[in-house]
Amino acid sequence: MNPDKSLLLTDLYELTMMQGYHYHKMEGIATFELFVRKLPKNRNFLLFAGLEQLLCFVENAHFDEEEIDWLAQQGLKKDFLEYLRTFRFQGDIYAMAEGTIFFPFEPILRVTAPIAQAQILESRLMNIIHYQTLIASKAIRFSLVAPKKNLVEFGLRRAHGAEASLFAARASFIAGFSGTSNVLAGKMYSIPISGTMAHSFIQAHDVEEMAFYNYAIANPRNVTILIDTYDTERAARYIVKLAPKLKEKGITIEAVRLDSGDLDFLSRSVRSILDSGGLKNTKIFVSGSLDEYKLEKLVSSAAPIDGFGIGTSLDTSSDSPYMDCVYKLQEYEGKPRRKRSTGKATWPGTKQVFRFFNENGTFEKDLVCLAEEEYPAYPLLQPVMSKGKRIYPNETLIEIQKRTMSNLEKLPSRLKTLQSAQPPYPVEFSPPLINLRDKLEREELQM
Amino acid sequence: MNPDKSLLLTDLYELTMMQGYHYHKMEGIATFELFVRKLPKNRNFLLFAGLEQLLCFVENAHFDEEEIDWLAQQGLKKDFLEYLRTFRFQGDIYAMAEGTIFFPFEPILRVTAPIAQAQILESRLMNIIHYQTLIASKAIRFSLVAPKKNLVEFGLRRAHGAEASLFAARASFIAGFSGTSNVLAGKMYSIPISGTMAHSFIQAHDVEEMAFYNYAIANPRNVTILIDTYDTERAARYIVKLAPKLKEKGITIEAVRLDSGDLDFLSRSVRSILDSGGLKNTKIFVSGSLDEYKLEKLVSSAAPIDGFGIGTSLDTSSDSPYMDCVYKLQEYEGKPRRKRSTGKATWPGTKQVFRFFNENGTFEKDLVCLAEEEYPAYPLLQPVMSKGKRIYPNETLIEIQKRTMSNLEKLPSRLKTLQSAQPPYPVEFSPPLINLRDKLEREELQM
Repeated sequence: MNPDKSLLLTDLYELTMMQGYHYHKMEGIATFELFVRKLPKNRNFLLFAGLEQLLCFVENAHFDEEEIDWLAQQGLKKDFLEYLRTFRFQGDIYAMAEGTIFFPFEPILRVTAPIAQAQILESRLMNIIHYQTLIASKAIRFSLVAPKKNLVEFGLRRAHGAEASLFAARASFIAGFSGTSNVLAGKMYSIPISGTMAHSFIQAHDVEEMAFYNYAIANPRNVTILIDTYDTERAARYIVKLAPKLKEKGITIEAVRLDSGDLDFLSRSVRSILDSGGLKNTKIFVSGSLDEYKLEKLVSSAAPIDGFGIGTSLDTSSDSPYMDCVYKLQEYEGKPRRKRSTGKATWPGTKQVFRFFNENGTFEKDLVCLAEEEYPAYPLLQPVMSKGKRIYPNETLIEIQKRTMSNLEKLPSRLKTLQSAQPPYPVEFSPPLINLRDKLEREELQM
Repeated sequence: MNPDKSLLLTDLYELTMMQGYHYHKMEGIATFELFVRKLPKNRNFLLFAGLEQLLCFVENAHFDEEEIDWLAQQGLKKDFLEYLRTFRFQGDIYAMAEGTIFFPFEPILRVTAPIAQAQILESRLMNIIHYQTLIASKAIRFSLVAPKKNLVEFGLRRAHGAEASLFAARASFIAGFSGTSNVLAGKMYSIPISGTMAHSFIQAHDVEEMAFYNYAIANPRNVTILIDTYDTERAARYIVKLAPKLKEKGITIEAVRLDSGDLDFLSRSVRSILDSGGLKNTKIFVSGSLDEYKLEKLVSSAAPIDGFGIGTSLDTSSDSPYMDCVYKLQEYEGKPRRKRSTGKATWPGTKQVFRFFNENGTFEKDLVCLAEEEYPAYPLLQPVMSKGKRIYPNETLIEIQKRTMSNLEKLPSRLKTLQSAQPPYPVEFSPPLINLRDKLEREELQM
């Protein structure tokens, strides 16, 4: 039961619908598209992430023998289970590249396959892409307000389970973070890992000074000392005394960390203590319930802080812990389809997104159109899987991070704020697409 | 790299601190306690969940050879890595039982072990317990306002990754839900699974009526039909026509599902259409961005709805996607320890929680005290692991759910609301504990 491969991590209705398609031999080709209907509050754009894990999942997705046996006890039909036994996805997928900035109603991923194959992917596909994209879109807000600072993802303990913690480390790196405290994420995704010490290490020593010394002696590389357990300024003065003793042993105190209190005030006071003690190169790293607004305040007041550990607010996207992201059938057997439920109507047909740039290279507008339309612009959806085989190359996270930074550079600057900008970025719909929607609407009214 | 067993899913600082303890031969016994500092907004109590997964993790937690090799490249010391190679947790754990209602500053779990062993558990321990407890505490709000309704967890697609979706299904069942749509959760935790169909199934058919028929024929058991794709009331009238045809084939339409629009209005209108069509036993199930407030409104207005699918708001605990939950060193080498950082001070010493009941069997107050104190009341922390071996029996989710319901019955009714009740439930601290804290405070001031 490995969620990286098991198709059992799905909503039951995917299986019952699939059984319906199988029973009635509905094997027509379907196109589903994944898109976000609405920006979360205070967001002006979103950042796509999670494609790598999705492609790995789709390439390997199958049902184990043991899972088939279990499904048999759940009342699914025998011949359907035989079909599931050898099931593999054999369709095509188009997607935006990870690290691409996108907007509501733009398909970010498009699956074309016999309908049962495209349907069964839905739940896990959304589970992977929704979360990574949510976190990348949150993390980039921190990069926006502190572009030159060292930002480290710290959220494992309050992330929603193991996979969330790993995906959060990955997605935030894509959005410009420089590292993570999550050791397994470091190993899995080659993200630089960093860490300091917890208050418990200090508390386990009778004297704070001894804790500092003991930590540095045992961990002589990249020494960062946590100085807020009892009295931050007193501890900073002790750091000044300790540094030469450690220097004799070839150990440098690279940084001190503050995790509580008035970080603006304390960082200035600690900076001044360190500077007058000759520790001009010792950096100040802070953490403790930071969100992008507190970060913006600290950066804009020029508090002398070099790096920030960002945890809970990032890993849970706390101000907006989900997006209105959906995976919808847009075409079946060559006919465009459209959902009309109140407040949830969709754009029909298989689509593409073109991005237009102005003369300075800045994003000018996006155009959502039918897949067969062509424009002298860059089509954001590119083939990533063909007949069930991945054709998208493996990218390093550094490459993806560079794409993000290049996208961010080209984003109109009025959108680079923590508040909602009006008017929003222009996303237009092509005349053929509008015509198609209107035609389907008229047909529905006549039904 | 199985997060169920790998100690690599940790923050780097746990490893560097551990290396510090190892280097300096600090092998004294430490006690850490897990507690919540503050209720999330609009909560009057919390519900403990996740112990089962935690115990499995702790019993199996180790480092693989391959992980040790990788850690060697990260600059950890050789003799420390040799120690990690055979590392196993050999300490004791006390915990509340899953399904226990608890309050801020009450230890819900207590780990006593040589300090390095207790320290390394921190990140993943919190990751498991924080999320399951968060979701159980959210889910019980739905149970509170709709105690007699069929509540089904539906949140896989917007849960934060695979594990979150599985844990959410489990935690919400503990809190009184009757099932989940998550097939893998059903298999792993023996939770009843249920499902209907998506709009895509309807849209893949040219005629909605044909979709209904095809689905029921292919899935003749527990048939639930989604009727809001185009025109809900028209679809309900068609259900009335379809039912006798299916009856001839021995198939019953158990329920219809509404997923959009004004659910209060539509459920009444659909109920009336079904009733006048002789389908008095066909249930109405609704879904679509439901939170506990919408649920309360629908239930209190007596909308004729039998069951609810609850997804995103539940799996992300959307109004409060995290809790201020911490794991703190409270005692080391027999000496109580205390953190004093601004706004983050803790209660020192190894502790217990007693619950007192009034003559009606209702919770009267809780008392947090030192572990050695005794009171004629029920101690909530019980031994669950001894010398690294689990001594807590496996419980079925049904048993845990019963404990929740029994706890809920005994909770003062003024706390059973969706809003914050004033005054909060009384949690007192024993005189010996207060004395100990005061004594440590005085000693710190003299330092």
